[in-house]
Amino acid sequence: MPKIVRFHETGDADVLKLEDLPLTEPAEGEVRLKVEAIGINRAEVMFRRGQYLEEPQLPSRLGYEASGVVDAVGPGVKGIQVGDRVSTIPCFSIGKYGVYGESAIVPDYAAVRFPENLTAIEGAAIWMQYFTAYGALVEYGHLKKEDTVLITAASSSVGLAAIQITKAAGATAIATTRGADKKPFLLDAGADHVIVTDQEDLSARVMSISSEKGARLVFDPVAGPFLEKLADAAAPGAIIFVYGALFPEVTPFPLFPALAKGLTIRGYTLFEIAQDAGKRARGVKYISERLQSGALKPVVDRTFPLADIAEAHRYMESNQQKGKIVVTV
Amino acid sequence: MPKIVRFHETGDADVLKLEDLPLTEPAEGEVRLKVEAIGINRAEVMFRRGQYLEEPQLPSRLGYEASGVVDAVGPGVKGIQVGDRVSTIPCFSIGKYGVYGESAIVPDYAAVRFPENLTAIEGAAIWMQYFTAYGALVEYGHLKKEDTVLITAASSSVGLAAIQITKAAGATAIATTRGADKKPFLLDAGADHVIVTDQEDLSARVMSISSEKGARLVFDPVAGPFLEKLADAAAPGAIIFVYGALFPEVTPFPLFPALAKGLTIRGYTLFEIAQDAGKRARGVKYISERLQSGALKPVVDRTFPLADIAEAHRYMESNQQKGKIVVTV
Repeated sequence: MPKIVRFHETGDADVLKLEDLPLTEPAEGEVRLKVEAIGINRAEVMFRRGQYLEEPQLPSRLGYEASGVVDAVGPGVKGIQVGDRVSTIPCFSIGKYGVYGESAIVPDYAAVRFPENLTAIEGAAIWMQYFTAYGALVEYGHLKKEDTVLITAASSSVGLAAIQITKAAGATAIATTRGADKKPFLLDAGADHVIVTDQEDLSARVMSISSEKGARLVFDPVAGPFLEKLADAAAPGAIIFVYGALFPEVTPFPLFPALAKGLTIRGYTLFEIAQDAGKRARGVKYISERLQSGALKPVVDRTFPLADIAEAHRYMESNQQKGKIVVTV
Repeated sequence: MPKIVRFHETGDADVLKLEDLPLTEPAEGEVRLKVEAIGINRAEVMFRRGQYLEEPQLPSRLGYEASGVVDAVGPGVKGIQVGDRVSTIPCFSIGKYGVYGESAIVPDYAAVRFPENLTAIEGAAIWMQYFTAYGALVEYGHLKKEDTVLITAASSSVGLAAIQITKAAGATAIATTRGADKKPFLLDAGADHVIVTDQEDLSARVMSISSEKGARLVFDPVAGPFLEKLADAAAPGAIIFVYGALFPEVTPFPLFPALAKGLTIRGYTLFEIAQDAGKRARGVKYISERLQSGALKPVVDRTFPLADIAEAHRYMESNQQKGKIVVTV
């Protein structure tokens, strides 16, 4: 019987249990993976705590991203075969289809062959991060090479993906980080400029870097009072994508800069892209081409064995990581 | 010497003074109007109080909207002649060019001939209201007949303009008003549905009216905590245009509905449209055609003589008006 991660109550990382559960068969339109690697996302931490967009039905599986080999396909599946090396796009219920385990079943459209030049570990570090950044910056933001893009919490896997997508488009990437310790890493990761927000005036630095224009695209998972500083650093007509809610308290809407500069504040999750067939296909093509060329390259911070899944979650909650945390199976 | 309204200090309506000032000549690219009527806007109340986007340089003129006859043109002016009957588009400094008075000078591109079927009083009640609603709903919102549009503070001139533009496009207009007293007026004014927010559950009513879809476009000058209720009433992918700041305290950003539904909260003022030559030309054409056909028709609540300008401001601040307040000269 495959080992599957579940939780019977919401709470801290210790609620995650490795359980032996019967191998199940994929239903119509589903495929089953023999999992090789699992990408760990903040969404799963939030879901485990009962603080996510989706409510867990206990006991609940969890997990959005896995790479592996297809070992069974359900009726009506086209385009995917047993033996295909795939990874999963987060476009399904995290509870119903949770991929944390040795075996995972997902809808067929969520299983995508990934470029040969990537390892299974890298394969588990593609779709959440690149789809999230791609959807905001490219699909909605129409990223152009003359743009200045302001990327907060830039050491996260999604932040690094945004830096890479910005640079691949020839635009200017400004990364922010709270403390100075991650600055050398972010410069190595491709950021043109790094602003240490505990020490520097964000708006003044962004204006100076952008010849007083401000950032046309802002990409932020934090929200909270910091949103007002981002609005000050934004260009007239800028779009601020808020794709997370890391700050635990109320976010004030930056009304006066929004009125004065005609700012768009856009709540955004990758599901808008991942759950729409047309947008998903455009995103898969855009990302796959750039993974093949090497313009995009997943940054894996650290791996954990499946038995240490709770430790992997605790490590994510420590906010020490620089890039993706992956669990190997 | 023409009588001109100025204020020497910011404050309540009594600071407005009618002063005899020398008749001045239009400079290059400017035209001068013999003013017949002046439209009163909340922007001028805010500016007079020192609470507007632009800071007054004291003593300051004020005023965005006037109708009248051109009685002088400066060098280099093309397309406008002495004797033309025009009204002004708010696309200039409210302090430098303030049009409250018997004579007003504005940039030539701000003076637009208005349809013959409108009186001078109606002519002073066109551009602020219709441009504001047009820019949000049509230019940016791509209003379609299947849309549900939620219009708050709907008894204001801009709110009524939004109802008319929504109806002219064949879409569904839901108007909100705080108290029940303005409900019959709003139904007469063309709203398909009126929600009395002091008495009814906004989100439940909007969902019921829109077959549980929600409003795709929301048009709001209030902001404040009410924005969270608007977000609850919004459809997935909706755009909430916030075009004012009537609520005096902090506006919480509706983060969770924004993430869950991919909402856009857009700070917006008509200046984005009025100060861009291409957008302005499209707007003038769109609005003029519909004024000529009668699809749009300015609603004038009450007129005041120029000597009672302070009284006109006080009346606006009372929030009793239903439609435009106009001062006759």
